[in-house]
Amino acid sequence: MSQHDLVRELREDNGSKIVLLVADGIGGLPITPGGLTELETAKTPNLDAAAKDGVTGLSLPVLPGITPGSGPGHLGLFGYDPLEYRIGRGILEALGINFSVGSKDVAIRGNFCTLGSDGKITDRRAGRPTTERCIAIVNKLRTIKVPGCELFVEPVKEHRFVLVIRGEGLGDAVNDTDPQAVGVPPLAAKGADAASQKTADLVNLFVAKANEVLKADAPTNGLTLRGFASYPKIATFQDLYGLRSAAIAVYPMYKGLARLVGMDILDAGDTLQTQVDRLKASWNDYDFFFLHYKYTDSTGEDGNFAEKVKKIEALDAAIPGIRALKPTVLIVTGDHSTPSKMKSHSFHPVPTLLVSDLARPDDVAEYGERSCLRGGLGHFAAKHLMLLAMGHAGRFGKYGA
Amino acid sequence: MSQHDLVRELREDNGSKIVLLVADGIGGLPITPGGLTELETAKTPNLDAAAKDGVTGLSLPVLPGITPGSGPGHLGLFGYDPLEYRIGRGILEALGINFSVGSKDVAIRGNFCTLGSDGKITDRRAGRPTTERCIAIVNKLRTIKVPGCELFVEPVKEHRFVLVIRGEGLGDAVNDTDPQAVGVPPLAAKGADAASQKTADLVNLFVAKANEVLKADAPTNGLTLRGFASYPKIATFQDLYGLRSAAIAVYPMYKGLARLVGMDILDAGDTLQTQVDRLKASWNDYDFFFLHYKYTDSTGEDGNFAEKVKKIEALDAAIPGIRALKPTVLIVTGDHSTPSKMKSHSFHPVPTLLVSDLARPDDVAEYGERSCLRGGLGHFAAKHLMLLAMGHAGRFGKYGA
Repeated sequence: MSQHDLVRELREDNGSKIVLLVADGIGGLPITPGGLTELETAKTPNLDAAAKDGVTGLSLPVLPGITPGSGPGHLGLFGYDPLEYRIGRGILEALGINFSVGSKDVAIRGNFCTLGSDGKITDRRAGRPTTERCIAIVNKLRTIKVPGCELFVEPVKEHRFVLVIRGEGLGDAVNDTDPQAVGVPPLAAKGADAASQKTADLVNLFVAKANEVLKADAPTNGLTLRGFASYPKIATFQDLYGLRSAAIAVYPMYKGLARLVGMDILDAGDTLQTQVDRLKASWNDYDFFFLHYKYTDSTGEDGNFAEKVKKIEALDAAIPGIRALKPTVLIVTGDHSTPSKMKSHSFHPVPTLLVSDLARPDDVAEYGERSCLRGGLGHFAAKHLMLLAMGHAGRFGKYGA
Repeated sequence: MSQHDLVRELREDNGSKIVLLVADGIGGLPITPGGLTELETAKTPNLDAAAKDGVTGLSLPVLPGITPGSGPGHLGLFGYDPLEYRIGRGILEALGINFSVGSKDVAIRGNFCTLGSDGKITDRRAGRPTTERCIAIVNKLRTIKVPGCELFVEPVKEHRFVLVIRGEGLGDAVNDTDPQAVGVPPLAAKGADAASQKTADLVNLFVAKANEVLKADAPTNGLTLRGFASYPKIATFQDLYGLRSAAIAVYPMYKGLARLVGMDILDAGDTLQTQVDRLKASWNDYDFFFLHYKYTDSTGEDGNFAEKVKKIEALDAAIPGIRALKPTVLIVTGDHSTPSKMKSHSFHPVPTLLVSDLARPDDVAEYGERSCLRGGLGHFAAKHLMLLAMGHAGRFGKYGA
């Protein structure tokens, strides 16, 4: 029996409330051997109190040693095995610019490039145009119609844009048209199966028309396409867990990931305080809240240890406001670690705490990498986190007699 | 390679002895935040000494957050993945009254009900008859013959009984005949496939004859049937592990679960002392002994913290008698936790200790929830416990060269 079938069989609605607070990239590393991590360095009296009141552990996002992107990192936390459920690059790019992708869409990452008079690429990034110019060129492309589908062209920044093709029966097994080289023309799109050939035909038509529309616009007079991706077939939170679910996230990517699993996207404002205000205001309307905090990741990516410490302390200050709502279950975790030392996502397990009346106490009274090692949840797979959330919320019946 | 294929490939017989002592529902919770659990409260010098001599850990019965019934809980401990092997309700009910179900049986839970003159149900529990009356009515039903099968009708208590149909090629995909409502007649049985239709036809014939036999016996003049279940296809302990295996259990359900995996059922008497006496007396006849202790669960289910503590202390007193036999491997664990605070089974991991000359020592010198967190076995899936038992007993050869 699969995890999802098990969840559907056992789930019950008892009116309890679950809050999942994802501090993106929260886990870290010491800069010098034997030193403290960012989280261990930060003064976090409220997170420490929550660790003391609840149970702690370490979440493994995918498998030991495997570093996830934001997509797999969050799918795991939401209870979708990231090795089974994959989000294509095009879809992730569309989610990242807050485009509402849907089930009939194939999303594709686009780059403007410079084409010579012979149609061969002379610059794969079109001389890195400004984002203003990107927007202007995208607006020209929006005039293109291709029979048999709806087209959406969206600017990202500089030479990057997103193309979404919406239609019936479109496959995504289509090659990148970017040849990854100059001195050759962009490749034609080809589909690996009938449905994907349908996509390829539409795309080739679009590209031919785009080349016509942009022919006087050198150095942004051509384009290449990569990462063709259909909208993933994925059960919604409501369908899977029976939870009325809402996301309170500031950044588009995380709203998009939440929308992918059917959460309502609430207006989060743009600070932790406005997020907590929204949580309070919507408390009675939902059973499950996903709060996303970005800055523990972005400061880690910047390699700024001291700033990551500050952002952790800012997170800590928001905890009392959340706990005051008395969620049945409060979980604080991350989708992965982002050690400042590495300036990137990493594979290290993620410190996790869970507060609930049913949490079995451990001896941990501090939220940190070393302390969570002694926690009652042990090392667990991120894909099991929602089982722990549902179990501690009393939302599962007994399995078997 | 499946776990069972691996076991079959590696197993060796070295004459060693394994004792698996299951303290049902042993794990618990503190009543008040920060307090001690039942097991931590109990004075358990002998279990603590065993924890010190051996290695400890925490067993996850099914998956994190999932609470098992007794069936899945024990199947896991016996090394049968509880998500793969399922025991139907009817079979479990039959096991619970010590009925020897076999491979040709479909077992069904029955309720006596009251039928009006129009054949519609007026009381789904037949006015809750005494168990004496239940037995009397069952005896009348035992006179019924249906061609093509053997029938067994067994009283449970009050309005409940078990019906077992024994025959060739009988399926169990049959609907409940209980409409879960009054004012309507019982439903006819229908099979979802040819084998199950065969069962349904036999059952419908039985019900028609029963209605005739009971027509003057209002309020116990009708019956409904639920939980049709075939005997699960399951490898025996002998076949799987090559172990001559015996169960020493007081309660029928656990004898039944042991019989399901092919263990011999020994006369256990009705106390822990008679169980240990039986263990001694049968020591030379078997390689593997499953001892079941019920009262850590039943006191937890009653919500009686103090009584559960006493029952744990009674268990502790039995440990020296078992260790005196010098089993190659002694394991003490539970099939799940049953915190008095919850008055029910729970999902919390189960404290486990394993004593063996090959146990790698950890720093744990106490058998309890918090202490086992630091144990050398870590958090492990219950379905892997028998691998640990066989390994520590020296009963596995090397995997690969």
